[in-house]
Amino acid sequence: MEPDRISQRLASPRSRRWFLRIGTVWSAALVACRSKSAAPPAEPRALGAPVSAYGSRSRFEQVARHINQNTKAPLEEASSRTPLHDTYGMITPSSLHFERHHAGVPEIDPSTHTLTIHGLVLRPLVLTVADLKRLPSTSRVHFLECSGNSASEWRGAGEPDVQRAHGLTSCSEWTGVSLALLLKECGLKPDARWILAEGADPCRLARSIPLQKAMSDVLVAFGQNGEPLRPEQGYPLRLLVPGWEGNVNVKWLRRIKLLDQPAMTRWETSKYTDLLPDGTARQFTFTMEPKSVITRPSGGDALRGPGVYELTGLAWSGRGAIARVEVTTDGGTTWTQAELQGPVLPIAHTRFRWSWRWDGSPAVLASRCTDDTGYTQPALAALVDARGLNSNYHNNAMQLWQVAADGKVTNGNRA
Amino acid sequence: MEPDRISQRLASPRSRRWFLRIGTVWSAALVACRSKSAAPPAEPRALGAPVSAYGSRSRFEQVARHINQNTKAPLEEASSRTPLHDTYGMITPSSLHFERHHAGVPEIDPSTHTLTIHGLVLRPLVLTVADLKRLPSTSRVHFLECSGNSASEWRGAGEPDVQRAHGLTSCSEWTGVSLALLLKECGLKPDARWILAEGADPCRLARSIPLQKAMSDVLVAFGQNGEPLRPEQGYPLRLLVPGWEGNVNVKWLRRIKLLDQPAMTRWETSKYTDLLPDGTARQFTFTMEPKSVITRPSGGDALRGPGVYELTGLAWSGRGAIARVEVTTDGGTTWTQAELQGPVLPIAHTRFRWSWRWDGSPAVLASRCTDDTGYTQPALAALVDARGLNSNYHNNAMQLWQVAADGKVTNGNRA
Repeated sequence: MEPDRISQRLASPRSRRWFLRIGTVWSAALVACRSKSAAPPAEPRALGAPVSAYGSRSRFEQVARHINQNTKAPLEEASSRTPLHDTYGMITPSSLHFERHHAGVPEIDPSTHTLTIHGLVLRPLVLTVADLKRLPSTSRVHFLECSGNSASEWRGAGEPDVQRAHGLTSCSEWTGVSLALLLKECGLKPDARWILAEGADPCRLARSIPLQKAMSDVLVAFGQNGEPLRPEQGYPLRLLVPGWEGNVNVKWLRRIKLLDQPAMTRWETSKYTDLLPDGTARQFTFTMEPKSVITRPSGGDALRGPGVYELTGLAWSGRGAIARVEVTTDGGTTWTQAELQGPVLPIAHTRFRWSWRWDGSPAVLASRCTDDTGYTQPALAALVDARGLNSNYHNNAMQLWQVAADGKVTNGNRA
Repeated sequence: MEPDRISQRLASPRSRRWFLRIGTVWSAALVACRSKSAAPPAEPRALGAPVSAYGSRSRFEQVARHINQNTKAPLEEASSRTPLHDTYGMITPSSLHFERHHAGVPEIDPSTHTLTIHGLVLRPLVLTVADLKRLPSTSRVHFLECSGNSASEWRGAGEPDVQRAHGLTSCSEWTGVSLALLLKECGLKPDARWILAEGADPCRLARSIPLQKAMSDVLVAFGQNGEPLRPEQGYPLRLLVPGWEGNVNVKWLRRIKLLDQPAMTRWETSKYTDLLPDGTARQFTFTMEPKSVITRPSGGDALRGPGVYELTGLAWSGRGAIARVEVTTDGGTTWTQAELQGPVLPIAHTRFRWSWRWDGSPAVLASRCTDDTGYTQPALAALVDARGLNSNYHNNAMQLWQVAADGKVTNGNRA
């Protein structure tokens, strides 16, 4: 019970810097705030709403996932995209986490759902959700990104805003049980080399994963941002495969089968392979490579004339932690290092910020990131050189935003 | 564009440890899972629900904040408590963040709300929410705890569960603008020593804060867990005063006045002072001292017989980062260090875990934490020795959970 030190601290001399104004750039941004009356306006005084069992957002907030309308299939075989322009920090609100479903969101009763582990094991297991929750668990902040994120930008289609162009990535704190713990308990037969993970959705989405990854950092997750998984994120159980493409993180997980080779499901033959210019395909391209995008200002914004603006955006890498983000305002001729918002966590969205003084002339904004393996995000031209134009998957190229003299921001990827 | 290395990795020899079973303790916990059929049961196959604009939790999940009924005042002057027993990781879901209101939750239109900064300043400011959001912002994960949290335990009243006893603490990723930036822009007059922060709730809750703190790490926050503040957390603006008691983090923030001394509002004279045995009161006891509690198993749980259990809980300190958490199962005779879940962030909930093999005899569980300033959480008797029994505020003593031979877990603070 130490005495409170407030009084001592107050007695210490205060630095002169407290009386200095902030940098002239930001000071100018506040000019309009200085001419108003200093008397606070009236505010509502009626007694407010009572406490509640489970809160919801203000009715004044209507930010929403963007639902992909460019499909002939029903909305059950569809995607919705995170409003990256309107989210803060590193955690994506669970209600705004992107979705990509192939047969809709099943409604699963957790009291009857089970996870079966079988195949090339000595002792098969059938676990209820309650069984799993009794085991040691772990929590980690990780992004998830659909391998089809930014597909529209591959050929410079140029979606009008960052949500439509890049909104198939989100970041949560996931909680679950180590898959390695479960597999060790089953006892692997010597020829076990891969696992097949299968969901309980009507289309039985199923992906093959090499045993090496399954025995490292994979979780059977039941928690997201402090509470149970949301239905559209696999409630009650999903696989969480850190850094690997979204569809491998099988939702509504019901079955893991140990195999001696990949199962070659339709999800890894007709879909989720990357066709190269020579007619061959890259298959099992699991890792989401380093990527970043400026989220503010971005397509659809309108700057209010010359002055100072905070550039902010997100960077992430399936290989590890973000080491550096650079930004350009002249389309890539010169680059400056942005500030990274801590904590910088491995395989997690990392927010970057940079103060930009706009002189009112046309500009081209972009960011590029480098992760702690030394990989630097490529320009679109370099990506196309290496992979051609046949594929839609794994576009991690830089995103250009064009700022016109009138302040309007548009997609600069065509430029 | 490096080639995928999966095939090379698969060719490398696998370690024998993959074939070993997990520790015998956890293996025993899975015995029941081994006797079932290995054929996965049928699952619903009807097409699921479509994608949606803003998601919500499964209808099978009904965990709720506990609403305090022990008051003669209406529910607008009330609290609700976080279900610590049923949350995971470090982030508290915004919908389950604790509440403590003195005049209900006002509904505020962000397009008309303003923040006025005046008093002993050279240039008063009146900022709209939009003005604030254009300034440089920052995001940080911090807990908030009501100074009245665990008040029931001070005299060993013994709430039946962890939610009721300790649920006035929660942890979010907050986003906002540095208060120091705003104050520097206003220009402080030489005699400015304190700020008064006032809310727009009908009771105008207002607290005095020393300038030293106001110029350090305080945020004018507009974001919580990636989206705008929830109404009950101060929408559209609140003060976030890291590590200081909850009520100082003024919600629905409308006014900051620079003063030469504390304002001595009723919130810091008739309330939120700590009466000592000699009749004097500790006032301006801002800092929330180090504290921890085992959340599972905890009061109301029933262990299913001898075997292994994961003990988990939360630790936090308003002074910095948690350095160490120790757990006891014999009421404090012996202590063992628990595992801390990373990232361990300053002034944030830190989850700890420890595997306990219960032999079936009565046990008394407790945790105690030490922060990076070297402060160790006290036992209740030590707290009472120092502070007496007059006060309800700032109880950071250890919580005991009594485990009976039949596995029932009850509050052990009376013991």
